[in-house]
Parts: sequence; structure tokens; C-alpha cells
Amino acid sequence: MMNRQVLLASRPKGPVTEDNFRLVETPVPVAGEGRLLVKNHWLSLDPYMRGRMDEAKSYAKSAEIGEVMVGGAVGEVIESRHPKFSTGDWVVGALGWQIYGVSDGTGMTKIDTSIAPASCYLGVLGMPGVTAWMGLLDIAQPKAGETVLVSAASGAVGSVVGQLAKIHGCRAVGIAGGKAKCDYVVKELGFDACVDYKAGRLHEDLKAAAPQGIDVDFENVGGEVFDTVLRHMNAFSRISLCGLISQYNAEPYGYQNLRSLLVNRIRLQGFIVSDRPQLWPKAIGELAQWLKQGKLKYRESVAQGLENAPQAFIGMLKGENFGKQLVKLT
Amino acid sequence: MMNRQVLLASRPKGPVTEDNFRLVETPVPVAGEGRLLVKNHWLSLDPYMRGRMDEAKSYAKSAEIGEVMVGGAVGEVIESRHPKFSTGDWVVGALGWQIYGVSDGTGMTKIDTSIAPASCYLGVLGMPGVTAWMGLLDIAQPKAGETVLVSAASGAVGSVVGQLAKIHGCRAVGIAGGKAKCDYVVKELGFDACVDYKAGRLHEDLKAAAPQGIDVDFENVGGEVFDTVLRHMNAFSRISLCGLISQYNAEPYGYQNLRSLLVNRIRLQGFIVSDRPQLWPKAIGELAQWLKQGKLKYRESVAQGLENAPQAFIGMLKGENFGKQLVKLT
Repeated sequence: MMNRQVLLASRPKGPVTEDNFRLVETPVPVAGEGRLLVKNHWLSLDPYMRGRMDEAKSYAKSAEIGEVMVGGAVGEVIESRHPKFSTGDWVVGALGWQIYGVSDGTGMTKIDTSIAPASCYLGVLGMPGVTAWMGLLDIAQPKAGETVLVSAASGAVGSVVGQLAKIHGCRAVGIAGGKAKCDYVVKELGFDACVDYKAGRLHEDLKAAAPQGIDVDFENVGGEVFDTVLRHMNAFSRISLCGLISQYNAEPYGYQNLRSLLVNRIRLQGFIVSDRPQLWPKAIGELAQWLKQGKLKYRESVAQGLENAPQAFIGMLKGENFGKQLVKLT
Repeated sequence: MMNRQVLLASRPKGPVTEDNFRLVETPVPVAGEGRLLVKNHWLSLDPYMRGRMDEAKSYAKSAEIGEVMVGGAVGEVIESRHPKFSTGDWVVGALGWQIYGVSDGTGMTKIDTSIAPASCYLGVLGMPGVTAWMGLLDIAQPKAGETVLVSAASGAVGSVVGQLAKIHGCRAVGIAGGKAKCDYVVKELGFDACVDYKAGRLHEDLKAAAPQGIDVDFENVGGEVFDTVLRHMNAFSRISLCGLISQYNAEPYGYQNLRSLLVNRIRLQGFIVSDRPQLWPKAIGELAQWLKQGKLKYRESVAQGLENAPQAFIGMLKGENFGKQLVKLT
């Protein structure tokens, strides 16, 4: 019985390529005293991983060349020498891009697959869902009747942001790439409007979709999209800066409209969901409640097999996924 | 007896020129019932006035062509038909670029010239001082031991920001243009360091002046200076966005380093001091206390005569002033 792992083979120069990864077979690790061995069923692919591939200073330390790529996974405990976990438990944690992972229990959480399918704990009930909850409800604090805009609106985070905005009585406006995603955002997720940034008239379309201006921008993409959004922000509006995915592979974009931050007395807060672990239980509790009530819908993009993780990750950075990007490992 | 006024003659196209203003003589106005007539002694020149000259949406409505330029002034009441003011009172308020102004009392405040000279109520004890107080102490809330950076450090706002930072136990670092201003900021105002942005090595000099990075940036200038400052911000740092003076006359600068806002989880707040009038009395009270204790020093750049106000204003936008820019009217 062998383990399979995806290693970081080299750091990207510009866009990520499959050459930056290497698939290897290694012996299945052994769980020493105080540790547990997990067989991963689902691997999560998330934009933040792009930052870990660089050497540049970011909010977390870089992944090292030759090491297993970092990432969240859901799996089943197949051996435990840890007092808090038993064989057969389902868990979520930072187990990496591999089939078998060993953990000392740090950051590992048992999940209840009777509430929702295991994969949900990597999406709407996992890091992306908590990110949406924290950035919108804790940081931006929209009031009923306000307009909330979210970019990457059909993605794992954006889709939750807009639905939470609706639950809280706001007008929810999305930005997504292409008609299919925009239709999904409005017709399936219940946003009030969704603007297709690929249509080439973002400024005009935003004006139509948010005629009262924007009170909260949940920013996931940055670049020209964000620069255009800045022109529509209202006085005393808030920006939750969650991601800049359009910039991760690109030459830095030159933002022209920062004057809006001053003129409109905007509060902008950059944030990382892992900075405040104390909020996670409350967030997941509320999200699970809304999920059970049918108020939170989600969609998954599933790649089959660990060997296809690099390709799926590269596609996600280009917006080719539709909903939460996962890799089915088993 | 005639009044003299400076009117907005035309809106600037690019840099402000003297042609944008017109000096006129008009009859001295009469104070009707409920009004007071003030003879202005000092006119304040402030960067925000540049925004009022444009038609573009800003935080306050534009000045109108052919009307008296907006501005704060200090003067003496020479006739009062208002119950709260008497002849001989000294007042500060938005009396405009003129010798005689009439007011219905809105926004007019009596000043106590036994505490400080009248001109101080346009500087350290006026709008600029309160701006510094609000942006630093209320918004950024620096803790003792943190590093506070302020651009336009020798100016009316910046000079107070750095001194308040020192009073609160912080390391105060300034950015100013030229050796004379930098020397003044360190030797007279007591900042720990001041970087000359004109020396052409801002990134390296900031590194030396703020070796522990920057915890609070009080931003007055924007443009390339701000973009460089963003590279030095610490995790969980704050930016009080007060002004973008380098941009008021310029083509918009393309900011490259917004990624720092995300990576460092920065909180940025744009603000305008007039949004929170309820904080002014507390701010002025504390500033007056520190002024009396000799903990707040200030410097004034004085132009003589209303006719020289346009030239002085244009110079201030280029950084030619040194300290608070005033016009002595009498």
C-alpha cells in the first residue's frame, strides 16, 4: 500500500504550470504516539495556495520546494494513537495534497456527515463559508436595505457572501465571468443581479445593477474589476478585502481610483480567515443552520483523482471552475 | 469702505493657475437680523480647497464660478444682530476669501485669544489640529512603542500628527520635501526621523527610518510616496487616509502595491474631519492643553494681503509652504 503525493517542484515564474508540481509515490506514513493517520477523500483547491507557492512575504510562510503542497482535506481516520480521535472518525484539516496524511491533531476537527456531505466541510461549512461569514457579517456589517457587491460571485466564497447578504435583507449584486455563471448566481443563488465582467462594459453594467451605489464590496479579484468598483462606492461604505485572484499570476495592476477611498470615507479591511479561529464555531453553527433551512445553496466543481489536482488548480486560477473546486481522491 | 473678495473665476484644467481666481471690490455687506458682520484678520489656505474648485463629485459640493472662494478665517465681530455674538468677539468659521463676511452664526465659534494667538485657531487649535487628532487618536489608535509615519510632516496637519504620536509614546517618522523641512521636523518638532522624498531613495530611507516597519500611516500625499509606504506596512497596521495632495493636480497615479492591504490585513479608513463635529470640543481641549504645556510646536507660512492668496495657495499645492499656510488680511 503506497501513498501518493503532489509536491511543489518549482516556484512559478508568472502563471502556474503543471511543471511546478510533481506527483510521487511514497510509503504510507505511520501514526506515531499522539498522532492519527487519515485517508483523505476530498482535497480542497483554493486561491490562497497560489501565494504559498511564492517565496515572497505573504501572510503565511511559503511552501518549500520538494514538500507536499499545502491544502485542506476531508478524510477518515484509519488509525489513531491520539486520545481525541478514533478510527472511523471523519475529520477536516490541513492534510495537504496527498492520499494519506499524518497529524498530531493540531487544527484537525471532527465533522458530522449527518448534517451535510463531507465535501461541504471544505466549502460552505468550511474555510470558504467562514471566510464569507467573517468578511461580510463581522467586518463589513451590512444593514438591511444596503447594496452588497461581491466579485467571483459564483465561487466558493462569493456564492455564500451573496446569499448571506440576502438573508440579512440586503440587495446582493455579483460579478462573475460569463453568462452561465451570472445566470446561476441570479436564478439559483437568488442574487438580485450579476454583472458579467467579460462583457466589456463593467462600469455601465455596475451602474445598472447597483443604481443606489455600493455600500459593501466583498473583494475577491482585484485588478481592473476592483478599480471600476471603486467608482461606484457610496459615502461611508466598507470594503472587505479578501482576495486579489486576478493579480496572483499577473504583473501588478496600477489602480487609478483610490481617491474614492478618501472622498467617500471608505473603511477597507484586509483579512485572513485564519487570524480569528475564535469566530469559527459561531460561523459554522450559523452556516449549518441556514444550510439545513435551504437558505444556502452551493455548487461543486469536482476533479477526479489526485493526479488531476494541478490542472484543476491552474484552471481555477483562470476562473474555469464553477463553484467550489474540489478533487475527489477515492 | 469697500470689501475685497477673491472669486472662483474658472475651474482648473490641470494645475491651478492665478487665472482661476479674480480679485474684486464690492460693497461691505450689511448684517441683517440674526446675523453678524466679521472683519477677517487671517485666512486659512488648505489642500481641501483644491477639491472644491472642481466640478467632480467630492465630499463637499463644488464652489460655484463667480462666487467667493470657500475657506476658514479668523476675525473680529464688528456688528452683531445675533443673540450669541457681540461686537468685539473674536470668531473662527467658514467666512471665505474676503475681508468682510456676514454669517447667520452657523459653524461660527468664539475663540479665546488669551490661550493662543488668533491664527492658531486656523492651525494647531483649528481644523488641521483636529484633523491630526481625529485621524491619529480616534481612527488609527496607535499603541505606545508602535511606529507612526506621517507624510507632509512639516505641514499644518502632519506636524501635529507626529507630536501627538510622541506624546503617546510612539516612534514618529515623517516624510517631507527637502533637507530644511526634514531638519525642522526632527530638531524642532521632535520626530525620531524624517525622510526627504525628494532625495530619490524613499524605499531605502524608509527602511532605515522605520526599521521595525510601520504600524500607522497617516496619509496626506498619496501617489508614489504612498505606494512606497505600502511596502513597509506591518501586519495588522492601520492607515488613516486624510489627503492625496500629490494627486490633486495630477493625472491619477497607478498604485502597484495594494496587495499589502490584503497580505498585512491592513485597516484603511478615509476620513473628513467635518463628519464628526461632536469630537471637536474634546480634540481642541486636549490640543490646547498640550500647547500650553509646550508639547505642541507649530510654524506658520504667512502671505501678506488678500491679493496674494491665490499665489500662496498655488505654492502650497506644490509644497512651497513651510508649516501652516495663512494669509494675513489686515
